[in-house]
Amino acid sequence: MKKINTSPISGMQELLPAEQATFDRLKNKIGEVYHRHGFMSVETPVIDRCEILLAKAGGDTEKQIYKVVKTAEAQDGADQALRFDHTVPLARYVVEHENDLKFPFKVTQIGRNFRGERAQKGRFREFYQCDVDVIGRGELPIYYDVDVISTLLDAFGAFELGTPVRARISNRKILTGLLEGLNLQEKAEDIYSIIDHAEKVPAEKTEAALTEIGLDENEKAKILAFMEIRGGRAEVIEPLNALGVGSELLMTGIAELNEVLRLTEADGRGPQVVADMKIVRGLDYYTGTVFEFNLPEYPGVGSVCGGGRYENLAGYFTDQKLPGVGGSIGLTRLFYVLNENNLVKSQETKPIDFAVVPITEKELEFAMKVAQDLRNDGKVVTVVAAGKKLGDKLKYAAAIAACGIVIGENEVATGEYQVKEFN
Amino acid sequence: MKKINTSPISGMQELLPAEQATFDRLKNKIGEVYHRHGFMSVETPVIDRCEILLAKAGGDTEKQIYKVVKTAEAQDGADQALRFDHTVPLARYVVEHENDLKFPFKVTQIGRNFRGERAQKGRFREFYQCDVDVIGRGELPIYYDVDVISTLLDAFGAFELGTPVRARISNRKILTGLLEGLNLQEKAEDIYSIIDHAEKVPAEKTEAALTEIGLDENEKAKILAFMEIRGGRAEVIEPLNALGVGSELLMTGIAELNEVLRLTEADGRGPQVVADMKIVRGLDYYTGTVFEFNLPEYPGVGSVCGGGRYENLAGYFTDQKLPGVGGSIGLTRLFYVLNENNLVKSQETKPIDFAVVPITEKELEFAMKVAQDLRNDGKVVTVVAAGKKLGDKLKYAAAIAACGIVIGENEVATGEYQVKEFN
Repeated sequence: MKKINTSPISGMQELLPAEQATFDRLKNKIGEVYHRHGFMSVETPVIDRCEILLAKAGGDTEKQIYKVVKTAEAQDGADQALRFDHTVPLARYVVEHENDLKFPFKVTQIGRNFRGERAQKGRFREFYQCDVDVIGRGELPIYYDVDVISTLLDAFGAFELGTPVRARISNRKILTGLLEGLNLQEKAEDIYSIIDHAEKVPAEKTEAALTEIGLDENEKAKILAFMEIRGGRAEVIEPLNALGVGSELLMTGIAELNEVLRLTEADGRGPQVVADMKIVRGLDYYTGTVFEFNLPEYPGVGSVCGGGRYENLAGYFTDQKLPGVGGSIGLTRLFYVLNENNLVKSQETKPIDFAVVPITEKELEFAMKVAQDLRNDGKVVTVVAAGKKLGDKLKYAAAIAACGIVIGENEVATGEYQVKEFN
Repeated sequence: MKKINTSPISGMQELLPAEQATFDRLKNKIGEVYHRHGFMSVETPVIDRCEILLAKAGGDTEKQIYKVVKTAEAQDGADQALRFDHTVPLARYVVEHENDLKFPFKVTQIGRNFRGERAQKGRFREFYQCDVDVIGRGELPIYYDVDVISTLLDAFGAFELGTPVRARISNRKILTGLLEGLNLQEKAEDIYSIIDHAEKVPAEKTEAALTEIGLDENEKAKILAFMEIRGGRAEVIEPLNALGVGSELLMTGIAELNEVLRLTEADGRGPQVVADMKIVRGLDYYTGTVFEFNLPEYPGVGSVCGGGRYENLAGYFTDQKLPGVGGSIGLTRLFYVLNENNLVKSQETKPIDFAVVPITEKELEFAMKVAQDLRNDGKVVTVVAAGKKLGDKLKYAAAIAACGIVIGENEVATGEYQVKEFN
């Protein structure tokens, strides 16, 4: 009988061994794909200085960050908290180790981050993020935007979900330039937010919201026309030029988007990529390419990956300009929604190849030898030494392993044994 | 120029990419070996309830545990802290999920734990522990003690340190039984502590300490004789029996030690295993087999792994008796001391197989194609698109990759390219 509540804290993921094996398989696949694309792994501490983590805080961060109390034995040093993403600690890392890194620095971080959000179904307070970033020094060619998007698409490819994954791409310079050209800079935050929410509300609501913030008919028409621009390179570049708004930034944005689309096409990813002006991704931070991945056949799943280009990784920490582009798979949430939609194949075979079952203690030594020989051949093997009756041992063996090997007197005498496949 | 202190908090490990690759290699090897021995991976949340983590606290735990402040958005639930080891969350996990697990439950946990200790060279406040445990329900045969020790020895074997690793084994029932037989139970804590420290002080000091706590000459002689017992099965069982102290517990302990030594020998690990009565491992918790690994050729390194048998994993959480045996490699500290002693082979080859270098932007598309083809063959490949001059690109390529592939007009025209090995 339980003496205490043993459930994990609300908002924490805790998996049974078979689920954990599936989760680990996805995590390892992501790591392999990232590595194959030339990204080097880095781990920053989970606990960092508040001064670093909150350098550019605001918004939800301050409300969600977990502060850590100094312990009785470790009273030294600054105020501390748990990292809430990989980007801020990476900025600190790159500045701290700048002289030891090669730029462009292609880096991956796979680990848990922490946000004490309001409890909500499918939201987690501890969650894995699997990030890739390319950090330049001074400048960074637009090729790396494509590098990041292709790498993330390959990671999803490795999952073998059996349903297409689509990258929706835009460029923040286009929208910012458009608002400049229309003299709407002061309403930029409102407009970003309206576009960002447009897919979640009926079209009339979006139009009403634009009216509400004081746009005239012409401005509204331009914004609404902009938002509808969507498709492959052939379908979007012409309409974007046809917006007929004079802005250099807009033109730069269109040229960058064109180049990203051209190179992703050349990289054979055309069918997986679509330009979509509804992609905004938050109010600040991103300054060029922005993207989100979704599963077109599962609209309810929403965005499964996002990222973009930022002008300066570490402006709060250094004068050195460090432009970058990155993206992140939020694996804990992704695993949850994929399972909800039956999109994750669980481990098809049992995780243990062989369970070696000595009938009595007398056969234990030989069973251990059989097991170790099989391990030396790369097999996953366990010896079943617990349980009074052979029947109990075999039941346990069948529950955990794909095959069983029973070792009795005969097997010891002859040195030969039979492999029984469990069903 | 830096605007802020960007070093990690004192006591936190932060590695450069090449060091991280070596660290990850060791971590992955441990995981592979554990898995090959049939241990299933489990991850508990980093943040857990204080009520759970401190159920059986005391000693240093209360002074070192990092409490976590509830966030503005997540005020619900109990007081929280960061886990300081894998054992307490595992106890909670096993009780919570008991009906979904198969017993004996062979489980591995590899992850970071947190202890805010006083800052000290070679000690870390965030550290990886790589645990294996076998949890039984009701009872658990002694074979699993050997299973754990063999698994941990194989993990060290996979490191290819080039220096032997030795498992030093004892059994807590022997010492407890001896003290019972000598009627010294009341001095047990002092005696445990004196034996535990004996290797760090001169022999006279140990004897003086035993005199100080009031042992007579006969008692002292027995304890000192006991402490000197050390060696293979042939060398220790006889002297242990010859202690001539009447205690059933002592006899059980000797029989268990004998069986562990017999089975490790049978498993071909005789040369790596030595019985050593100086191994105590703390004051409580362990109740049978105890072990520590060391590197005999590097006495300064100290213990690199430890563990043992415990009577009851989760006595604070449930009435169900859950005996277990486990061990842990403290990888962060181990990595530090192995490096201090030049015992870790760094990655021999560069982590990236090929850097594909287009001479100008015109060759970028073909370079991307070459890179992706090589990736499809399982190679680790990056495209070098940054840098104005070819010389700069090649210098960068040589710094990060084992081989370079330069793509110019000719390569695009012919579709053929040459691989240049960097030195």
